[in-house]
Amino acid sequence: MISGENSVSRPVVRSDVLLGQIDSLASVGLDSSGGRTRLALSESDKAGRDMVVRWMEEAGLEVRMDRIGNLFGILRGADGGLGNALMIGSHIDTVIHAGPYDGCYGVLSGLAVLRAFREAGVVPPRPLVVAAFTNEEGVRFQPDMLGSLVAVGGMPLGEALDITDGKGCTVGEALAAIGCSGGEEPGFLLPSGYLELHVEQGPRLDAEKKRIGVVEGVQGISWWRITIEGKANHAGTTPTKLRHDAGYAAALVSVFLRGLSLSAGTTLATVGTIDFEPGAVNVIPSKAVFTVDLRDPDGEKLTEAEKRLAAFLEKTAFEEGVGISSEHLVRFEPVVFDRELVQAVEETAASKGLSSMRLVSGAGHDAQMMARVCRTAMIFVPSAGGISHSPEEHTSGEDLAAGVEVLLGVVLRVLGF
Amino acid sequence: MISGENSVSRPVVRSDVLLGQIDSLASVGLDSSGGRTRLALSESDKAGRDMVVRWMEEAGLEVRMDRIGNLFGILRGADGGLGNALMIGSHIDTVIHAGPYDGCYGVLSGLAVLRAFREAGVVPPRPLVVAAFTNEEGVRFQPDMLGSLVAVGGMPLGEALDITDGKGCTVGEALAAIGCSGGEEPGFLLPSGYLELHVEQGPRLDAEKKRIGVVEGVQGISWWRITIEGKANHAGTTPTKLRHDAGYAAALVSVFLRGLSLSAGTTLATVGTIDFEPGAVNVIPSKAVFTVDLRDPDGEKLTEAEKRLAAFLEKTAFEEGVGISSEHLVRFEPVVFDRELVQAVEETAASKGLSSMRLVSGAGHDAQMMARVCRTAMIFVPSAGGISHSPEEHTSGEDLAAGVEVLLGVVLRVLGF
Repeated sequence: MISGENSVSRPVVRSDVLLGQIDSLASVGLDSSGGRTRLALSESDKAGRDMVVRWMEEAGLEVRMDRIGNLFGILRGADGGLGNALMIGSHIDTVIHAGPYDGCYGVLSGLAVLRAFREAGVVPPRPLVVAAFTNEEGVRFQPDMLGSLVAVGGMPLGEALDITDGKGCTVGEALAAIGCSGGEEPGFLLPSGYLELHVEQGPRLDAEKKRIGVVEGVQGISWWRITIEGKANHAGTTPTKLRHDAGYAAALVSVFLRGLSLSAGTTLATVGTIDFEPGAVNVIPSKAVFTVDLRDPDGEKLTEAEKRLAAFLEKTAFEEGVGISSEHLVRFEPVVFDRELVQAVEETAASKGLSSMRLVSGAGHDAQMMARVCRTAMIFVPSAGGISHSPEEHTSGEDLAAGVEVLLGVVLRVLGF
Repeated sequence: MISGENSVSRPVVRSDVLLGQIDSLASVGLDSSGGRTRLALSESDKAGRDMVVRWMEEAGLEVRMDRIGNLFGILRGADGGLGNALMIGSHIDTVIHAGPYDGCYGVLSGLAVLRAFREAGVVPPRPLVVAAFTNEEGVRFQPDMLGSLVAVGGMPLGEALDITDGKGCTVGEALAAIGCSGGEEPGFLLPSGYLELHVEQGPRLDAEKKRIGVVEGVQGISWWRITIEGKANHAGTTPTKLRHDAGYAAALVSVFLRGLSLSAGTTLATVGTIDFEPGAVNVIPSKAVFTVDLRDPDGEKLTEAEKRLAAFLEKTAFEEGVGISSEHLVRFEPVVFDRELVQAVEETAASKGLSSMRLVSGAGHDAQMMARVCRTAMIFVPSAGGISHSPEEHTSGEDLAAGVEVLLGVVLRVLGF
């Protein structure tokens, strides 16, 4: 399989270059919090994209972009076509005050692997592609994982382009504003295999002192926006038993969800946002609007959690004399990754003497979208203390280097080297 | 006591004029919610003040204003001085989307009583004063009841003028901007008696079908701003038992306060405002900031409630692994009104065939500040359904007329008619 005109050797990743690129990209959008903010399709996202495109070009890759802004660096294979590609991807958009690794590590590691092939003078038997998908985080535009969702045909392009951010700007307008409405139709490059290397964003590898996470799948996600309508009234004159306090009802839901999580075992529940109206110290809240993020690796348990939440909302509405409505924002079924590819990750880690453990991803990833169309797996490296979506996110250089070694090893194994 | 050169008769309130003036003032700052917003020292507050000043002048009163913007309409007594005055007051500033009666009813009823004396040609034996105090509601500037607090010497003028609103504008700047920094020193006119007529802002009179509330005092108020500092982390990957969720801890406090209210009997507790940081669907809140409004007619029970809250915060900080700090925003001890004046209210209602009940005000009123310096009482009329601080606040014209009849009756009784 090793071919080419000039000197040819086995591809080797230069982790020093990878770590340097991670640092450089992490400086784009850096703010005084010590974190960086590159919300999808913002000016700072554009600056990050430009940096990655330059590195793709320097690595001799062919750069393509589709109409939802997904960015691809392509190393053509022996047959010169785009069929049967092996793709390595993730995202470079961030949350607010993000850490340096979430997404970026996966994209730049993919780039490092392709660069290793180029530098070794190895023409792969199949095309190798590094992908950076648009709006994975979902902070500016919902749903999250939008670019990969559209790429695999999970949402029509037109519908995606019409999604608005909090200020009324559409995805289409945002793409145009930063010149990232690419020339390709989404899905023009659907691979036959997909790998994603990512920091764990959870504490398990760190707690178990394992170097590599062998990701078997992604848990299901269910996002809700819940609106409770009570009755505004004077805080000093309304007897407790006559209150219809939307804020208190919201607190009951939050406490209920904690109990649900603890009793269900694997279910996670989070109330991440809340707003009261009218929002005065001495007025009983007439309205509380909050979000609920439910997750479970088991689709049936996720559905069960949704049912228990719905029943509790009904009970609370009755008992507190408030109106409760809920809007389903996001629903992703749990995803099970390709059994053979997962096994390849596990064996590769073992072959390199790296300890590993199997786990299910708690966070959503572009990999779960790609799993709809091709064999997919993910590789995790430890996150110190499990901290994620925070400037304090941290993974050691040694662990980052180990992760990309495993990624390259899996790629070589898949390609038959 | 009936004197004067021209025809003289017993003062009679013209409730049709009063109700018309209430309607006119209620139209100032009206918005599409059906409520009106005249935050203290705003342009719309100024428009309301101008209307009231014009009515004071039309009634032949001498108009004075002090340096904190408190407005006085004076009907001099037989001796021509300002000593030993009987004052009737309240406020005309409003909350956001307010009803028509809160405060305005008391000021305009005082004006109606003084007008009754003028129209009857009766020179009172002591000066009669109608007062409209600045910033009673405390929505724009804290603390509430600011004008009356400064008038009775409870806060130095300089300190009050330096209080800022949410946009950094000081009371002094706001007074100057609307030309309401008056020529008198606060406290230039301290009366020897004070009466305030107000809608109940609570459901008791309406529920008990009583026409007049004989207010024995005002419950104590304790306002807190509580800040909980947890740890931001990924909603999908952080096991429940490893969370330090500031939002969940805030919910626990809200639920605890409900239990405290129910077990303590007379204590009321309200969480009226809340904010989460960072405020994303899939991020565990690192910070929750919320307010607590505690009230009790009994000072010792209020202190007990504060202690129980503090103990619960300490327990929650320990159990949830979060930091909790609390800032005391406002503390007013319960106030007991003058026994004889309260009895005069009760007897006057009975003499007019109006049913009454004794109660303690749940809301704060300027009367509680005036009670620091003179004999004070309040009269309540029913609020339909107890609704207050809302466009739906309602009291029937019949009840409004009955209230001002009692007010005039008490004034005549106090003056020895």
